[in-house]
Parts: sequence; structure tokens; C-alpha cells
Amino acid sequence: MKKFLNSADTILEESLAGFSAAHSDILTLDSSKKFIQRKHLKPGKVALISGGGSGHEPLHGGFIGHGMLDAACPGQVFTSPTPDQMVETAAAVDTGAGCLFIVKNYEGDVMNFDMGAEMSSGTVEQIITNDDIAVEDSTYTTGRRGVAGTLVVEKVLGAAAEEGIPLESLKKLGEKVNGNARSLGVALTSCTVPAAGKPTFDIGEDEMEFGVGIHGEPGRRRDKLKTADELADEICNAIVADMGTRAKQPCLLFVNGFGGTPSMELYVMYHAARKVFEKHGVTIARSLVGSLVTSLDMAGCSITLVAMDDEVLKYWDAPVHTAALRWGM
Amino acid sequence: MKKFLNSADTILEESLAGFSAAHSDILTLDSSKKFIQRKHLKPGKVALISGGGSGHEPLHGGFIGHGMLDAACPGQVFTSPTPDQMVETAAAVDTGAGCLFIVKNYEGDVMNFDMGAEMSSGTVEQIITNDDIAVEDSTYTTGRRGVAGTLVVEKVLGAAAEEGIPLESLKKLGEKVNGNARSLGVALTSCTVPAAGKPTFDIGEDEMEFGVGIHGEPGRRRDKLKTADELADEICNAIVADMGTRAKQPCLLFVNGFGGTPSMELYVMYHAARKVFEKHGVTIARSLVGSLVTSLDMAGCSITLVAMDDEVLKYWDAPVHTAALRWGM
Repeated sequence: MKKFLNSADTILEESLAGFSAAHSDILTLDSSKKFIQRKHLKPGKVALISGGGSGHEPLHGGFIGHGMLDAACPGQVFTSPTPDQMVETAAAVDTGAGCLFIVKNYEGDVMNFDMGAEMSSGTVEQIITNDDIAVEDSTYTTGRRGVAGTLVVEKVLGAAAEEGIPLESLKKLGEKVNGNARSLGVALTSCTVPAAGKPTFDIGEDEMEFGVGIHGEPGRRRDKLKTADELADEICNAIVADMGTRAKQPCLLFVNGFGGTPSMELYVMYHAARKVFEKHGVTIARSLVGSLVTSLDMAGCSITLVAMDDEVLKYWDAPVHTAALRWGM
Repeated sequence: MKKFLNSADTILEESLAGFSAAHSDILTLDSSKKFIQRKHLKPGKVALISGGGSGHEPLHGGFIGHGMLDAACPGQVFTSPTPDQMVETAAAVDTGAGCLFIVKNYEGDVMNFDMGAEMSSGTVEQIITNDDIAVEDSTYTTGRRGVAGTLVVEKVLGAAAEEGIPLESLKKLGEKVNGNARSLGVALTSCTVPAAGKPTFDIGEDEMEFGVGIHGEPGRRRDKLKTADELADEICNAIVADMGTRAKQPCLLFVNGFGGTPSMELYVMYHAARKVFEKHGVTIARSLVGSLVTSLDMAGCSITLVAMDDEVLKYWDAPVHTAALRWGM
């Protein structure tokens, strides 16, 4: 296993320590190490909390700060955080307007965030993201998986919460954004979980996993390598078909790297995807390209399309100041 | 070769097309495809131009915009741009105050930028970056190589140019920043140049290249894998020794990924490096962590320390709006 680490047992702790030290102007790691929280909470604002297994960085800790999340609960690598993490986080960051948990649709996460919500003394609502159209049920999931679209939900809700929108309205807005988001990914290599020390799956030199999940879960099929244009064609056609009439709205195109794929290739995929979407008459109103919802060191990428409207565009464009996403301030 | 591309012949062109479409609010790709330039030039401001072989993205195109570069000349992968690119770029973006070329110290780049400067009709000055302490002369270099510290030179000069600082003063400021920057990198895997189709160098499953260059050039030695702490110890000790008394100034610590290394590991290295520097009494005044000066898909990272002063800190903190680095606006 070729990784920068001291031991698989301490990689998460040391990474969090480095992350919180590098971004101490905007966030703090709680002394319990159970959560990271926004440094300057805004009294009376709904607290947005997300989390999940680690290994998807910068999701979620990298999205803590003004205009996005108030806190994130990191689990061990590809392992749900425990309910006590969510309970303590909610108690720490709820300034009176309640909490909204943003949870990716994986059985462990859904169960543990649900228990955390029940055990919390304050008001907690939840929203489950499930934007991955690759498969319906899967290894860790009943229903579709939550993947890169989660970032868009967090950004839009973060801006809305900053404006003082109340809990119930935020939940509805989050459901709208999630319902308008579609993603599909492909892996060229496997990720390697530090504690396992070897690749999660075997894959041939001329193979790819089409529809892969962000933990290296199987997708639609194992296939021979395809060109960028062939891949974009299949991915974007599937997304447009699944979007239905939503694809007539102005859209955000988000090309996301899985951790081992460099910027140059992501822009090749962006170029290829944009051509296909435009052929379908889709208007690309906003763009995002980067390795933002990752799977450790997996080479691969996902394409996400989100149908926007004036409200969502306004919140997408609103200022954000986090470690990994920043504009307008 | 596992990459997202249509063909090695078109990867650069398609990547640039995607990049310029995704960031059309801040930059444009010239119709000749010879350079990318800032969309809204600022009349009377010195034009900052950089460039070099492609494969190091987001360097340099990702740093075009308010408060950083005015243009970048992308060569083919790991190949210098040609002098005519620089001549045409200078003619396009010089609004009357002259141009400053920011050039990484590689023989091809130095020669071609030099010819470009000579052939330009306007006033052109140059600054050569050479922050890599790994080796003195190397495969493509007389003297030290220019690596991640180049980003810091570009950011600081960009802010100063935005303020209206004249050409000669910018050149002096750039030389100061470069003179105060020290970098050292390590590779766990080789990069694969698309046109070559196979890894640039062979490396064993238990080996690393200590002091590697950003084209996969040999470093100080081939070595057995080490822990993050052991690596940080050797890298940071070497940097501090080379910095001399400069290390007493407040410093910027920049942990840079080479393209195939995920965020989680970069923060482990940041944590490890910061501990070593602080043991030496170094004050970490600013931090930057990300894959910003890359070597295609190489797994690895570099550590850069830059001694700052009030002037440099002011320009580092000043607003910047580029595709890959953005704050304050």
C-alpha cells in the first residue's frame, strides 16, 4: 500500500488534526475528536450538520463555514459515524433554530443519523441524498446512493440557512435540490482502504467499473475501457433520460474526481460531457470541476447534473467560505 | 494506460477547451489556442505571463484572473511552449505597462521564454523560479528546478501588479519571494505521459523517489517507503537547513499533491510537517494544502516553506479570483 501515513490506525486522527490546524480561521476540531464545527456560529440560524465515513474528503469537513455546513461528523474510513457523534454535534451547534442533518443514503449512515436525531434533545430534521442513478439497490443501500450531488444540497441549503430560512423550509428546499440532481460515476482503478492495505476490488489493465459507488461498490457492469467521448455519451444520455423534463431548466454541470484523477483529465470529461448535454438542448448555467467527493485514491470521476431554478441559482451563487469551496468572500 | 481521454494527440486541446468553457467568466482561450488570457484586462497594469509544459494543472492556467496571472502559455505535456506563443501572448495582454514572464527553471522553458522576450516588441522582464532544493543540476536543469513555490510567486506578484506596482519593482519582489521559497517532493508512483502510454519510471511496491521533480525526474535517491513522520522529518529538516535565518520570519507552509494523492493524505503530511517546523521554532503564519502544482497522475507530494514579511503577507492575503485559487472576492 502506497500512502502517506504513519499507521492505518491513526490516519484519520492525524488528517483531522492537520485539517483543523490548516483551517483554524474557519473551523475547530472538537476536543472529543467527534466532530468539526464552524468557528463562528451564527445565533438563530438553523444548524446544518452532515457527516459519514471518511475517505471522501473534502466532503464533508471541507464544506464547513459561512454559507455551507455548521458541522461534520467524520466516521472511520468508509464507516458511518456513531449516533453519539451526531448527538454531541447537535448539542454543540444548535443555537436555537434547530438542526438539519444532511445524510447520504447508505444504510449505516441513515440508521446512525436517525438514532442521533431521536436521541437529540433539540429539534432535528433530516434530509437523505440519493442522486446516484447507477443502480437502484446496492451493497450498502436500499434505493439509490447519495454521492456528489450531496455537495450541491449542502451549498444551497447553507446559503439559505445563512439567510435565516427556517428548518421546515430548508428541508423542503433540500428535497427539491436532491430531487433535481443526477450523478453517475466510473472507476479506472480501485481505492485502497488504509486498514485493508490492499485494493478493494481487482480490475484489469483494460477495464473500468461503470457506475461505481464512492466506496468502490460495484456499479452497472465491468466493461472494457472506453474513450472520454464514449463514456460521456453513455453517462450523460442516462442522466438526461432520468432527469425527464427537469433537463429543460438551466443546469449545473459538476465533474467530480474520485481522488486519483488529475485536473487535466477532469476537464477532458467536462468538455465531453458538455457537448453531449448541449446536444440534448441542456443549458449549462453553472459549472464545477474538481475532486470534491472522493473515494480515497481511486482513479475515476463522476458527472452530476442538477436542474436549477431562480431560487437555487441565487443560493448557489451566494458567498461561501469553506476550506474547499470559496467564493464571494 | 488508464486515463480519461480520446487520444493522446488531442488531450491538451480538449482539456483546454473544457477548462475555458468551465471558467468563461474569468478567462478565454485565444482562437489560436496558443494562450489563455484573463477576460477583463486592467489597462495600465503590468501583465503577468507564465506557462510551461502542460500536465501540472491547475498551474498555470488555473491561476489566471484578478490578483494573479493575466495569461498562460500551455506547452504540450511536459514540453515547453514555443517562443511565438509568448510573443503573441505579450502582444495580446500588454496594456502599456510592460510584461513580466514568470518562468520555472527548466532549460527548454528558460530558452523559449527568453527568445519570446527578445522577439517581443514591447517591454518584457523575466523572473526565473528555482525553489526545489532536492538537487542542484538535474535532467532538464542547470541549477535548481522551479516547482510549487512558483504558485506563491504568481500570487504575490499578481496582487502587487493589481495595485499598480511597476515592472522593475515587481521583478525585485518576485526575486525576493522566490529567494525565500524552498520545496522538496517525494513520489510514490510514476506519472504516465499520455503520448508515452506507460509510466515514466519503474518503481517497486515498497519504494519511493525522494526529491522527485514534477516531471518524474530523479531526485536525491530511490529509497524504501517511509512513514509520514519520517518523511516530514527529512524533508522539513532539509528545508530549514537551506532556509538559514529566513526561517525566523513568519512562514507559509504549502503541502502540494502531485495529482494522484488524495486530500486525506495531504493533511496527514501537513500535520507531520507542521510538527517538525514548529520544533525548529518556525512560525506557520499561513497554510495552503491542495493538488495545485501537479505531475499528471503521480502519487506524491511536495512541501514548500516560504519566508514571508509584511509586504508579502499583505499581497498573499489580497483578493484573488482564479479557477483554482480564490478568496476575498
